[in-house]
Amino acid sequence: MAKRAKANKPKRPKAILPRGFSDLSGDDVLERQQMIETIAEVYRTYGFQPLETPTIEYLDALGKFLPDKDRPGEGVFAFRDDDEDWVALRYDLTAPLARYVAQNRNELTMPYRRYQVGLVYRQEKPGPGRFRQFYQCDFDTVGSRSMAVDAEVCALVADALEALGIERGGYTVKINNRKVLNGILTQAGIATISDDAAAAEDVASPATVRAQVLRSIDKLDRVGIGGVADLLGKGREDESGDFTDGVGLAEDQIERIIGFVTAGETGGGSRSEVLDRLSDLVGDDPDGREGIDELATIDELLVAADIGADRVEIDPTVVRGLDYYTGPVFEAVLSADDDSGQGGADGRRSYGSVVGGGRYDDLVKRFTGQEVPACGASIGVDRLLAALRDRGRIGGDETQGPVVVTVMDGDRLADYQAMVAELRRAAIPAELFLGKKNLGNQLKYADRRGSPVAVIAGSDEFSTGTVVIKNLRYGKEVSLGIEDRDEWLKAADVQETIARDALVSTVAELLGRSADEDAS
Amino acid sequence: MAKRAKANKPKRPKAILPRGFSDLSGDDVLERQQMIETIAEVYRTYGFQPLETPTIEYLDALGKFLPDKDRPGEGVFAFRDDDEDWVALRYDLTAPLARYVAQNRNELTMPYRRYQVGLVYRQEKPGPGRFRQFYQCDFDTVGSRSMAVDAEVCALVADALEALGIERGGYTVKINNRKVLNGILTQAGIATISDDAAAAEDVASPATVRAQVLRSIDKLDRVGIGGVADLLGKGREDESGDFTDGVGLAEDQIERIIGFVTAGETGGGSRSEVLDRLSDLVGDDPDGREGIDELATIDELLVAADIGADRVEIDPTVVRGLDYYTGPVFEAVLSADDDSGQGGADGRRSYGSVVGGGRYDDLVKRFTGQEVPACGASIGVDRLLAALRDRGRIGGDETQGPVVVTVMDGDRLADYQAMVAELRRAAIPAELFLGKKNLGNQLKYADRRGSPVAVIAGSDEFSTGTVVIKNLRYGKEVSLGIEDRDEWLKAADVQETIARDALVSTVAELLGRSADEDAS
Repeated sequence: MAKRAKANKPKRPKAILPRGFSDLSGDDVLERQQMIETIAEVYRTYGFQPLETPTIEYLDALGKFLPDKDRPGEGVFAFRDDDEDWVALRYDLTAPLARYVAQNRNELTMPYRRYQVGLVYRQEKPGPGRFRQFYQCDFDTVGSRSMAVDAEVCALVADALEALGIERGGYTVKINNRKVLNGILTQAGIATISDDAAAAEDVASPATVRAQVLRSIDKLDRVGIGGVADLLGKGREDESGDFTDGVGLAEDQIERIIGFVTAGETGGGSRSEVLDRLSDLVGDDPDGREGIDELATIDELLVAADIGADRVEIDPTVVRGLDYYTGPVFEAVLSADDDSGQGGADGRRSYGSVVGGGRYDDLVKRFTGQEVPACGASIGVDRLLAALRDRGRIGGDETQGPVVVTVMDGDRLADYQAMVAELRRAAIPAELFLGKKNLGNQLKYADRRGSPVAVIAGSDEFSTGTVVIKNLRYGKEVSLGIEDRDEWLKAADVQETIARDALVSTVAELLGRSADEDAS
Repeated sequence: MAKRAKANKPKRPKAILPRGFSDLSGDDVLERQQMIETIAEVYRTYGFQPLETPTIEYLDALGKFLPDKDRPGEGVFAFRDDDEDWVALRYDLTAPLARYVAQNRNELTMPYRRYQVGLVYRQEKPGPGRFRQFYQCDFDTVGSRSMAVDAEVCALVADALEALGIERGGYTVKINNRKVLNGILTQAGIATISDDAAAAEDVASPATVRAQVLRSIDKLDRVGIGGVADLLGKGREDESGDFTDGVGLAEDQIERIIGFVTAGETGGGSRSEVLDRLSDLVGDDPDGREGIDELATIDELLVAADIGADRVEIDPTVVRGLDYYTGPVFEAVLSADDDSGQGGADGRRSYGSVVGGGRYDDLVKRFTGQEVPACGASIGVDRLLAALRDRGRIGGDETQGPVVVTVMDGDRLADYQAMVAELRRAAIPAELFLGKKNLGNQLKYADRRGSPVAVIAGSDEFSTGTVVIKNLRYGKEVSLGIEDRDEWLKAADVQETIARDALVSTVAELLGRSADEDAS
C-alpha cells in the first residue's frame, strides 16, 4: 500500500512565498490601515486629492530613478507583456505621478496637489525588515515654484506624525537644500568645470563628484564625522578591513564640507542661527545664495504657521540619496528617551528616517520637454509602524474577537444561528462555532480568537428558554492567579444563566455597548 | 534655431499606460475606499479577520484556476525573478489563501475565517469596463463542512449589500448546488462512465461533458432557454452567423436539463417549493440527494436568521464558471425598476452578477494532500460601484474641496500661510493658492477645486485687521440664473468683510461645523 501511494504521489507545489515577500494578518493589517487612514485625513485637510495609478507601467515611462544607479535595470521587476512591450511594476509613486501629469496636463487644475497610497515593488536583496513589496504614502504638489509648497511639506509631516500620536519632541522634521551644498562645492573649487571639459580631460564629471560627495555625507550616521572626512579624502578602511575608495579632495576642500555638515550641530540653536552659519560658508556663490534664500523663506513661513525649531529644524547632514532632487530636501526622524544603553550619546534612541522627500523639477520634463516644478514627500508607513510598536504606542492589546456561539447540539444549528444573527443585527461581531469539537475545545477556540463572551445552550437551556453567557475576559483576569486553565473555565462566577430574550441586551452590556437592534 | 533644437531633441518616453490599465482620481478613489470599508466592517461583524498576502507568488503555487481553462498559462502575468524561478501576479485571492493555509496549517485556529481586499491581475483581452487589474473583496471560511458556513455566506452578502444602501428588493442572492446538477446528469445517463473508460473509448471524459453543460447553462442570459437547448444539442448559430458546436446530447437528456434550469422559474415561490421540484428531478441519485439535503439545511438556517426568499433564493441557473467548486455556489444580482425601455420583460433592469462564490474542497489539498473544506465569496467592488453610480446611489454631488486662501500680495505669504494653518488646526481642509495668477483666476481655480469658501486679503484688509470671505457655494447657486460668470463673482451678497480674528469661526459657521481649534 505504502509503495503504491508513493508511486501515485502527485507532484505537489510547495506552500511558500518567493523570498522578500511576506503575509500580514489580523491586527497587523488593521493597525497599518488605521495609520494610513489617519495620514490620508491629514493630507485631505491640507487640500490634497487622492490618485490611484496602476501597479504596471511601461518601463520607459517609469525611467530609472532608484537610489542605486550603479546597476541600472536592476532593482525593478520588469517583463514583456503580450504585446512584447517592456512593462514593470512601479518601484515608487513619483514616477507614475510624472507620467500622469504629463498625460493629463491639459485637463489638470494647476497647481495640482495629490496624495497616493499604494504598494511599490523592488527586486533588491531582501533582508531583515527589508521587503520586496512595501507601502508608500506620498503627497506632492505639482506646478508651483513657491517656497510655500516646501514649507507646507514640513508642516504637514509634523502634523501627520502628531496625528499618529507621536508627542512633540518625539520627532524632528529636517530640511536642507541641495543648492547650498552645490554652492559650497563651487566655493571650494570642486566640480566647477563643465561636463564637456571633464569628458575631454578624462576626469570625473561635476555630476559624478557631487554624487560622490552626497553619498559620503549620507554615511555620517554609520561612519561618524571622521569617517566622512576619510571618504571625502583618500578613502576609508572599516572594522572588517574592507577599503572604500575616497573622492580624493584636498584637505582645505574637505574642511569646508565638514564645516557645512557640522553647521547644524555647533551650538544648535534656532533655524536662523543655522542659516547664518551656512550663509557665511556659502559666501557669494549665486547657487548657494539662492539656496539660503529659499531656506530663509521656508523658515519665515513656518514661523507664521507657529512651527518652531522643536518641530522643524535645518540640518545640513540631510542629503537624501535620490539624484532627481534639485532644491530643498526633507527628512523626518523619530527618537525617544532610552535607558537600555542602546541609545546615542544623548541618551536618546533614534529610529532613523521615517519620511523623505524634496523638490524636483525635471520628472515631467522627461515626457513633455517642459519643466514642471514639483515638490513632495513620502511617509514610510512600515518603518513608522515598526517604530511605534517598539515604543509601545500601538499593538500590545489584541483587538477584541467576535462573540462565539457554541454548538452543544448539532440538530439545533438553526437555533444557534438565530442567536448569532440577532447579535450581528445589533452590530456586535459574532460567529457560530463551525467545527466539530466538544465544549471545552470550543471555548479554547473562543479564547484563541480573543472572544470576550461565549454563548452556551444545551437541552436544559432550550427547555427552560434560557442561555448561558460566559464572560471570557473576566475569566482571563481571574485566571492570572490560577494555575489550571480548566479550573477557571468551570468557575461559576464567570458565567451566568439568563433568559433567551435577554441575550443581546446582556451581551451588549457586558461589552459596554448600547443594545441597538438596528445599528446596521 | 529650429533645426538645432530638432537635432538635439532627446528621445522622450510616451506618457501613456499599457492597455487595460487606468488611473483613478479624486472622488472615484474615495467612493471605492468607502465602499470597501463598509463591506469590511460587515465582514468583521461576521467574525472574519483580515489577511494581506503579497502581489507576487510562485506560479506553481497559484496553479491554474482561471475560468477559461482552454488556454492554460494565458491570462496570468508571469515572469522569471532574479533566481530564475517562475513567479506571477496573483489573479485572484483564493489561490493565495490556499497557499497561506497550507503554509500555516499548524498555527492557524480552525475553522479559519479570513477576509482580504486587494488588487488582482489578469493578462486578458481588455474591453469597456474590463481591466487588467481590479479589486477583489473576498471572505472565506476554511476548515468546516457545516452548511452553516454556506448559509452564512448568503446572509453576509445580503447584509453587505444593504449596508451599502441597496434597498431590500433591489438585490437577490442566489444559491445553487453543483451536486444537484451532477445528480441530474447521472439520472439522464450523461457523464456516467469513468474517466479511464472514457479515455480508452476515446470519448469526452465526464469532467469535460459536465464542464460543457455548465458552460451552456451559463450562457442562458445571453442566448435564452432555446439557445441553451441548441447548445446542449447540435449547436447554435448566432445573429452574426457564427456557429458554436453543441454538446451533442439526446432530446430527452436535454429536456431533463432544461427542466432543471427552469425549476426556479415555473411558478416562482418559496425556496422550499423550488427544492421540491428539484427533488423530483433528481430522483434517488445519491449525489443529487446530497445536494438537495445541503440546500434544505441552508434554507432552514436562513429561515432561522429570518432571511426570506425576497433576499436569498434558490436558482438552478446559477453555475459559476470556476471548475473548483464542489457543492453550493452563490451569486448576487442587482436590479432596479426601469422605465427607459432597456429593462427586461418584467420592466426591471438587471446589473448582472456583483458577487460570486461557492464551496471548494480541493484547493489546499494541492499542497498538502489533505482535503480541507472551504467556502466563501467575492464581492465585485468595481461592478457594484458602476451599478450604484448608474442608479444615482453614489456620485453626483462632488465632494467639497478645501477652503482656498488667495494671494493678493506676494510679500505677505507668511500672513496668508498663518490663515491656512489656523483653518487646518480647526480640521477645516484648507490650502494656500500656490501659483502666480490674478485674483479672478485664483477664484476660478477655487471653483474648479470645488471650494466652498475663498479667503481674500489685500492691503486694505491688512491695514484694518480684516479679511474678505467669499461664499462660493452661495455664488454657485445664484449663478445658475446668471449668464456671465464674472458677474456673480463680483456680486456683493456672496462676500463679506469680517475681523481677521473671526476667520476660523466665520468659515466654520458657513460650513456648518463647530469651530473647535483643537479638533486635530
